Amino acid sequence: MSEFRLDPTTREWVIIASERAKRPRDLMSRAPHPQPEAHLTECPFCPGNEEQTTNETASYPDPATGLWRVRVFENKFPAVSPDGLADRVEDHPLALSVKGVGMHEVVVESALHNRLLGEMEDDEIFDVVRAYRDRLRELHTQHFVRQVIIFKNHGVSAGTSLEHPHSQIVATPVVPRYRRHQYDVAVQHFDERGRNLYLDIVEFELERSVRVIRENTSFVEIHPYASRRPFETWIIPKTQRASFAEVSDEELRQFGGALRDSLHGLLVGLNNPDFNHILYTGALGDENEPHFCWHLRVYPRLTAVAGFEIGSGIHINSSVPEDTAQFMRGVVSSK
Amino acid sequence: MSEFRLDPTTREWVIIASERAKRPRDLMSRAPHPQPEAHLTECPFCPGNEEQTTNETASYPDPATGLWRVRVFENKFPAVSPDGLADRVEDHPLALSVKGVGMHEVVVESALHNRLLGEMEDDEIFDVVRAYRDRLRELHTQHFVRQVIIFKNHGVSAGTSLEHPHSQIVATPVVPRYRRHQYDVAVQHFDERGRNLYLDIVEFELERSVRVIRENTSFVEIHPYASRRPFETWIIPKTQRASFAEVSDEELRQFGGALRDSLHGLLVGLNNPDFNHILYTGALGDENEPHFCWHLRVYPRLTAVAGFEIGSGIHINSSVPEDTAQFMRGVVSSK
Repeated sequence: MSEFRLDPTTREWVIIASERAKRPRDLMSRAPHPQPEAHLTECPFCPGNEEQTTNETASYPDPATGLWRVRVFENKFPAVSPDGLADRVEDHPLALSVKGVGMHEVVVESALHNRLLGEMEDDEIFDVVRAYRDRLRELHTQHFVRQVIIFKNHGVSAGTSLEHPHSQIVATPVVPRYRRHQYDVAVQHFDERGRNLYLDIVEFELERSVRVIRENTSFVEIHPYASRRPFETWIIPKTQRASFAEVSDEELRQFGGALRDSLHGLLVGLNNPDFNHILYTGALGDENEPHFCWHLRVYPRLTAVAGFEIGSGIHINSSVPEDTAQFMRGVVSSK
Repeated sequence: MSEFRLDPTTREWVIIASERAKRPRDLMSRAPHPQPEAHLTECPFCPGNEEQTTNETASYPDPATGLWRVRVFENKFPAVSPDGLADRVEDHPLALSVKGVGMHEVVVESALHNRLLGEMEDDEIFDVVRAYRDRLRELHTQHFVRQVIIFKNHGVSAGTSLEHPHSQIVATPVVPRYRRHQYDVAVQHFDERGRNLYLDIVEFELERSVRVIRENTSFVEIHPYASRRPFETWIIPKTQRASFAEVSDEELRQFGGALRDSLHGLLVGLNNPDFNHILYTGALGDENEPHFCWHLRVYPRLTAVAGFEIGSGIHINSSVPEDTAQFMRGVVSSK
């Protein structure tokens, strides 16, 4: 029989539909592996085509060559752009708007067209997550920014059309209601229990161990209790910081390794599935709050989101997180 | 420049990204049209294969033949099932669960394998929406039911694998947090403004007219102010009822016609795109409340939901609802 489980970070139910359970092998992607070419002349993100992507905001060189290996610039087709003021306009009580003020950046993760995060060396992925943090710090100084969303779309079904590995950073002049809600849940937990919600989840999951994939000195990788999708994966730090902007270089190195290992597991275990990953970090001004804790979630796109999910907000997950975690531990140990 | 707009029914922002705007023609589906065969021997929903779909709960005959033309039965692979009690189990403060108690039904919308809702005669679609209402009334009498979600997945990207036109009904033992939130927003509007939120939206949209596709005596069809996706469509009644269970046969006839016309517009104007539609109705016990109003939303699946949407709850809509409404009025008038 299936089971409703409550996500302790959002207070949303999910349905773990064991009767519909698919074996991990049935969920494996049939996506083509990345092409062997290192650089493509027609790819706007490959070296040599930098003039196609203007307004560079950051760049990290490869120490061996001095050429960039991570590069950040403004999205050519931005959802928001840094012009004007984020004043609210109420044309009617039912029509409240704000100009699309903000910043929309692309983080090209490697100079190599076919270099996936899950296959990177420690130094390479360190530069990617360092770019995340450095841009977050910089964007927090802009007058129009209230929240920064850092995310990655990998594969067509995850919403990207460009193959060259890249992440995106969007700074918005509003705090999204969903993020505010997540934050409020963490505050309520803190007020009631006197402890940080995310550190409590780390403690709970390490104690139970069935949903843990692995841990290092600073991070835990789990398939959460109320996973919304098959192989949903959270990477949570063991040290509480509300904002990712506050993370040290040493923590970044550990985080990069944890992210690489997690994505490598998906790459090998599920044959390079489409996925999104999202960094959850506090809104501007919450840096020193004890309530929230930054973390990263990976959502593989193995099954469709249908009318039931859209209409109810309840996801039906055809996999049991305890089973997928066991499968993924097997992938890890057979490396 | 793009614009953030606030959805007055959820208080969520969306981004109307006019810089990324696609023309309606660019969004047209390349999906194959339904096959010409009327009945397929291998389709479990076609007449002659009824033994493959057991536990029939309702059936509506074609007056001409006496054979069923709408048929409702339990889903063979249910997300929830009617056994046991919906007692909460708290294994740990971070692990609250409920057994998957509920009901999961399939509504086969026609005996014909290739009969789309958008092409139906008045009498045919009346039986479909009548099945929705009748099953809702019946499910509300079950002890385990708190909320009923009625929805349709049309096409692979919308989450269905079976081509034969069908809807689904899921009765859950919990009120989804997202539905509760929507209801709370309507209550707050009522408390503050002294009027029903949805009737206010109808009045506002009819007054402005730019987002209205059409209306009949009982319903208005609009592309909402803060559309989350291109061609998102709402059908809202002009008479307030919190629950769809309270709708009369005469209103049902008008609603069926409005739904058919709306889906016909998508079918013709966008070449049979994948879509979901969802009926929003009050939770059990809210039938006589003045705050909420039942309605239906159609979400065409023309663009991908990516990491930004998952991570923020803010949708980036590459179309402007005023433009898509104008396009759709052109489709209507050229019929």
